[in-house]
Amino acid sequence: MSAALEAVLGEVKFNADGLVPAIVQEDETGEVLMMAWMNEESLRLTVERRRTVFYSRSRRELWAKGDTSGDIQDVRSLYYDCDGDTLLVRVVQHGKGACHTGNRTCFFREIELG
Amino acid sequence: MSAALEAVLGEVKFNADGLVPAIVQEDETGEVLMMAWMNEESLRLTVERRRTVFYSRSRRELWAKGDTSGDIQDVRSLYYDCDGDTLLVRVVQHGKGACHTGNRTCFFREIELG
Repeated sequence: MSAALEAVLGEVKFNADGLVPAIVQEDETGEVLMMAWMNEESLRLTVERRRTVFYSRSRRELWAKGDTSGDIQDVRSLYYDCDGDTLLVRVVQHGKGACHTGNRTCFFREIELG
Repeated sequence: MSAALEAVLGEVKFNADGLVPAIVQEDETGEVLMMAWMNEESLRLTVERRRTVFYSRSRRELWAKGDTSGDIQDVRSLYYDCDGDTLLVRVVQHGKGACHTGNRTCFFREIELG
């Protein structure tokens, strides 16, 4: 099932700040690369450009991923969850990786289980 | 790199509501199953039991995943991201799936790209 963004937007629940979390997963390997936030405008741009655009909560502005670093993410597919309050973006990751630390994934630190 | 929870807790940034988002991924297939929220207590219980425990924002209580549905999630590994504000939990999903709709993943609806 695939629906146009206009039909979906009423089902996407942006939070009190107008944001929804977006999980970014590498399409080819399944590796979860990062989580960032989108507002409606960044979601629209992501769909139009087929390239991830987020909303930076700290800088309070749109953030086209890779614009400065070159680590752009081409979008292969985009999903929203049963509650409509989380997005999943499957991408082709370019450059050295998704993380500003230089790691491929932002989830490079493990917590020991008890 | 793997560190005990006590050493990590100071690096985990719970939001103003005391919560952190937790992405749940199937360990074997890499499929992203769901996203839910944890507070410190549910994170501790998840690590101790090696089974996911979340915090339900709607019910305002701990929520041991699968307690009523049988769709429990055994934790294989647990990660926190570069900013310390998102968790990634790799699990073995039992029962019919992660989603209350009966779907295996909560991300079963696709948005058409432009």
